[in-house]
Amino acid sequence: MKTNHCKIIDCTIRDGGLVNNWDFSVEFVQSLYASLNEAGVDYMEIGYKNSPKLLKGADEAGPWRFLDDNFLKKVIPQKGTTKLSALVDIGRVDENDILPRSESLLDLIRIACYIKDVDKAIDLVRVFHERGYETTLNIMALSNVMENDLVEAFAMIKESPVDAVYVVDSYGSLDHNDIHYLVNKFKEHLPNKRLGVHTHNNMQLAFSNTLVAAEIGVELLDASVYGMGRGAGNCPTELLLTHLKNSKYQLRPVLGFIENFMLQTREKWEWGYLIPYLVTGTLDEHPRSAMALLASEDRDKYLQFYDQMTTPEVNFSQKIQKRPE
Amino acid sequence: MKTNHCKIIDCTIRDGGLVNNWDFSVEFVQSLYASLNEAGVDYMEIGYKNSPKLLKGADEAGPWRFLDDNFLKKVIPQKGTTKLSALVDIGRVDENDILPRSESLLDLIRIACYIKDVDKAIDLVRVFHERGYETTLNIMALSNVMENDLVEAFAMIKESPVDAVYVVDSYGSLDHNDIHYLVNKFKEHLPNKRLGVHTHNNMQLAFSNTLVAAEIGVELLDASVYGMGRGAGNCPTELLLTHLKNSKYQLRPVLGFIENFMLQTREKWEWGYLIPYLVTGTLDEHPRSAMALLASEDRDKYLQFYDQMTTPEVNFSQKIQKRPE
Repeated sequence: MKTNHCKIIDCTIRDGGLVNNWDFSVEFVQSLYASLNEAGVDYMEIGYKNSPKLLKGADEAGPWRFLDDNFLKKVIPQKGTTKLSALVDIGRVDENDILPRSESLLDLIRIACYIKDVDKAIDLVRVFHERGYETTLNIMALSNVMENDLVEAFAMIKESPVDAVYVVDSYGSLDHNDIHYLVNKFKEHLPNKRLGVHTHNNMQLAFSNTLVAAEIGVELLDASVYGMGRGAGNCPTELLLTHLKNSKYQLRPVLGFIENFMLQTREKWEWGYLIPYLVTGTLDEHPRSAMALLASEDRDKYLQFYDQMTTPEVNFSQKIQKRPE
Repeated sequence: MKTNHCKIIDCTIRDGGLVNNWDFSVEFVQSLYASLNEAGVDYMEIGYKNSPKLLKGADEAGPWRFLDDNFLKKVIPQKGTTKLSALVDIGRVDENDILPRSESLLDLIRIACYIKDVDKAIDLVRVFHERGYETTLNIMALSNVMENDLVEAFAMIKESPVDAVYVVDSYGSLDHNDIHYLVNKFKEHLPNKRLGVHTHNNMQLAFSNTLVAAEIGVELLDASVYGMGRGAGNCPTELLLTHLKNSKYQLRPVLGFIENFMLQTREKWEWGYLIPYLVTGTLDEHPRSAMALLASEDRDKYLQFYDQMTTPEVNFSQKIQKRPE
């Protein structure tokens, strides 16, 4: 298994923030950064760089939801070898908030978008690229995209300055055959771009799908410590650290972080393989209905939930509410 | 993905009993049997058929550890389409306890053994085969077997009447490349035998490895509801039910069983992806040291455990205590 071309992007703070509304202490984030440096992790995605002006409920969220460059310099007074990344969403980012890279601690800005917004995403790519950042384009919900739309998007992406393009399994519904299919499709149409993968664990396939992607040439591997991420969570960073054939990675520092920080966090907040997430995953649906169920008194009523989700009328009304990753 | 040649063997009671000392109520087992029938599961492994005379602590275990044919007839007064299976261990089974199949509810007897005991296992295969049972031979701890020993065992197995031979990932240390390698090796040397696979979830690869095995021709897929099994547990039955391309399987009945029985069981007993199991998995070790840690006051001291496990002297003293699956 050849995987020494790979780079790990730890998304614990950014994707994990979708679990706890970014309620991470500065100590938590600093300790994670130290652990990731020691483990040899290539990037840490330290939050979103969306604008609080463009989002509701902004004042209730932790600071990692709307990263401020000055705040970031206090949190990380001394950068290590682990680069820093932030994610932005189409329509939620104010490009005036993005400093030139030389004035920011951030190295990489990633743009999440649905297929219909790839043109807008590429506009942002150009802006961030000109300001000196590495950029990626993360096309969400690929399992629900028709191939003609995807091929049209590839043509635009190919001509853009974006560094890497992601296969994102937003609903945790893909298996290794799907990963093979999509990665090969991306390679065929985007021979000049590096590729990335972002998985979800609804079917307990997040790690396995990431390994398969890595083996067929995907370079950027998203993960989070103890799998912390929205819904069923992500590919666990610790599994990549120990299993990738790349001697530079160290498992030990991240085990220490899990012991000291993640166990308490998991006691307070819930993510991972839970039956409602299996149901949305296998039905290729956004996990929002599963999250709503788990936050309700009916959280353990799996049969009722399954019946609702497999009744066409109910399904339709839920489908029209889809929103970004 | 072609998987409609597959049969699922649900091991919840047998392997799950290693978690709770077979403390399952009759109602639990009856409800599971009803759910598996409704779901279309092919076999239910309802326990061990070892002899209490040959094992210590026998009087403390639930009845599923030493299945009694008369007791079984009371538990399952009416058999459905799901066949019944029992596992025996070399040196722990008294062949005089095994009735002719025509007088028993059991259809399948599976023999677990280490590579060195394959000859003894084949002797048992012959006895059970003559008494009318389907038989399988489950070679444990394959990740620690040298290939010359394996090839020697294959020669004996090939001439035996055993119906199927298992690839068993006892330590949860195999990935999809290992599964490919082993399954192809088994196919090459045992072209006249059906194959099975039994995985553990230490690296979150149990389901994925089972799918990969199924795709390359393995027929018998071991699983357990909600993954209940020793240590990190097994491939979850519910994931196979929903994901195998085989329209006869139904997810819904097993979701009901999880809702009504497994959630309470999981609150009382622990299994699944926990960091100590990741450590033994990645080190290709028996999980007993992780189980001992998790039963102690030091259960969350991951760094200390990792350091102990990666210090050669300690490792050696643990290695010499190895015992069967």
